[in-house]
Amino acid sequence: MENRIHNFNAGPAALPLPVLEEIRNSFLNFNGSGMSITEISHRSKGFEAVLNDAVTRTKRLLKLNDQYEVLFLQGGASLQFCMIPLNFLSQGGSADYVNTGTWAAKALKEAQIQNKPVKVAASSEDRNFCYIPQNIAFNKEAVYVHLTSNNTIKGTQWASLPDTGKIPMVIDMSSDIMSRPVDMEHIGMIYAGAQKNIGPAGACMVIIRKDLLDLCPGNIPTMLNYRTFAEKNSMYNTPPCFGIYTISLVLKWLEETVGGLEKMDALNRQKADLLYSFMDNSGFYKATADKGSRSLMNVTFRLPSEDLEKRFIAKAAENHLGGLKGHRSVGGCRASIYNATGLNAVSDLVAFMKEFQSQA
Amino acid sequence: MENRIHNFNAGPAALPLPVLEEIRNSFLNFNGSGMSITEISHRSKGFEAVLNDAVTRTKRLLKLNDQYEVLFLQGGASLQFCMIPLNFLSQGGSADYVNTGTWAAKALKEAQIQNKPVKVAASSEDRNFCYIPQNIAFNKEAVYVHLTSNNTIKGTQWASLPDTGKIPMVIDMSSDIMSRPVDMEHIGMIYAGAQKNIGPAGACMVIIRKDLLDLCPGNIPTMLNYRTFAEKNSMYNTPPCFGIYTISLVLKWLEETVGGLEKMDALNRQKADLLYSFMDNSGFYKATADKGSRSLMNVTFRLPSEDLEKRFIAKAAENHLGGLKGHRSVGGCRASIYNATGLNAVSDLVAFMKEFQSQA
Repeated sequence: MENRIHNFNAGPAALPLPVLEEIRNSFLNFNGSGMSITEISHRSKGFEAVLNDAVTRTKRLLKLNDQYEVLFLQGGASLQFCMIPLNFLSQGGSADYVNTGTWAAKALKEAQIQNKPVKVAASSEDRNFCYIPQNIAFNKEAVYVHLTSNNTIKGTQWASLPDTGKIPMVIDMSSDIMSRPVDMEHIGMIYAGAQKNIGPAGACMVIIRKDLLDLCPGNIPTMLNYRTFAEKNSMYNTPPCFGIYTISLVLKWLEETVGGLEKMDALNRQKADLLYSFMDNSGFYKATADKGSRSLMNVTFRLPSEDLEKRFIAKAAENHLGGLKGHRSVGGCRASIYNATGLNAVSDLVAFMKEFQSQA
Repeated sequence: MENRIHNFNAGPAALPLPVLEEIRNSFLNFNGSGMSITEISHRSKGFEAVLNDAVTRTKRLLKLNDQYEVLFLQGGASLQFCMIPLNFLSQGGSADYVNTGTWAAKALKEAQIQNKPVKVAASSEDRNFCYIPQNIAFNKEAVYVHLTSNNTIKGTQWASLPDTGKIPMVIDMSSDIMSRPVDMEHIGMIYAGAQKNIGPAGACMVIIRKDLLDLCPGNIPTMLNYRTFAEKNSMYNTPPCFGIYTISLVLKWLEETVGGLEKMDALNRQKADLLYSFMDNSGFYKATADKGSRSLMNVTFRLPSEDLEKRFIAKAAENHLGGLKGHRSVGGCRASIYNATGLNAVSDLVAFMKEFQSQA
């Protein structure tokens, strides 16, 4: 097992071991080409098959109908924050944003930098973003509603998506894409930096409903226009080949080993339940998010003191449990339990937490 | 040797075998972390060391003084095409562009899309871009002069850079960065998609002189502002970690195995001379670029007929010589002989070319 540890990193994060092994085993000679996946032409049949495989598997896993295009871009979710208002608000109109924490606020800020008319439809800032707002009155004229489905820093997640009626939702799913099935009914676009649930840093998946492409203007930079990527099957210029390749293998693992998103969801719930239940009953570890808003992906929690937290994180690392430090902006602890972090990792973590508590 | 072939791809292209082997050998456990390089946090000490190593080696190899910052972005050179005018022409002024072919023209077009005042200072379009313009009269008031140092499609390269006096050059070196020493005297910025000479697709190196950062406005999208990357050591958001890691290994190979850019240059000249001399004397293969403008990186050539070219490319592939097809926009043949394509690969290619000619 090459002395691997249990990886609770928030992103870049754990990848399925069989995926890493396949990459390693074929790294000097991809698919009989005599070249590494990093050396083959993006215009070759070999790479085209990889790209199309990633697209097809995405469509199957999320049960997308023909109205959606699956694209691969670069620049992470952060570049999407600026592309979304640039593409969708150039022909007029305004957008609603829901502010559920750091990343949602950054998405909003990039619309404001461009002087686009945007409104905060709801916010959970009043209680330090420890919950997901409910019963939101969206502006019926909004061009889109922007949401962050899972908040990695604050440890909250939308248990179910709101009903926005005819307004398409544009959702940053960077940290929970492919972790559960998604009801696409009101969704205009999903975007996700790959480095949490589906691949390495450096590739960004965009799933866009075709009617939204009509909003994209012709006079913006080519590389910032969604139509460029839709018209060229993500290959206007050289795409992030290694990232797309890794994504295709992760999606294959999701389909063929895990058995699809319903099964992945069930396993993810089992992992999260194990950890939250233990903490709720511990009288020692305290989850920071409200119960109805807890993230199944990023379990944020505190110990009775910062000193104990420091010792907890250090001691955990000695026990091959890595990445448990909370985000530097909020402190505390965080166990990110994305798809590739298995139930055994969570069991081992809970066992360690019990022991640490008994000795504290 | 895992049945590897000689790789003459134009990009993504060959990488040094020792680099690929090191990536493979540590792929499940990077530097004792118990995690893959694709799984470690970009905020970890382990990754920070990788990033700083890539920056330091770049500065050493190119003999950069303290006035230059080395940054890593995403989006390839194509995203730079729009970022350059957006950052440098927002406070007024115009820029000169030299049109030496497809990529230079695309860079120009992205400035025009933004309605920035740009001028074509020189062009080699009159003879289908088979030469590099000389004795160019640049506009003395230009904010910058944009050049493409090597033209992958047309097979031309600036033998030496022009003297632009006080006007900083902004140079797309995607296909010849780190292939030879560079006189930085008049250079304001160098940028390069990694996938030809320094790494895999998905990372873009930007070397920028600090005074140019003062031109970058405050009211443009954060991810499109060079100052964002300079102020955050390329880590405003998650960088393309695997790409930067691979680049650091390629630069290590350049320093420690090759012995620096003077030695790399000598070897590259030897490779190119071998191929061009053979063709010039063959009476069969005909290089397409003018003699004083020939690329040391991309050797473009024709055979007496398109039918022969088709057979040549197919027969070469059977002989483990891959990637010899010319760009789809120009046809013909092309042997890209970047840093990682060794002298033995070129010798084997020449031997094959002799045999093919004798049987044609």
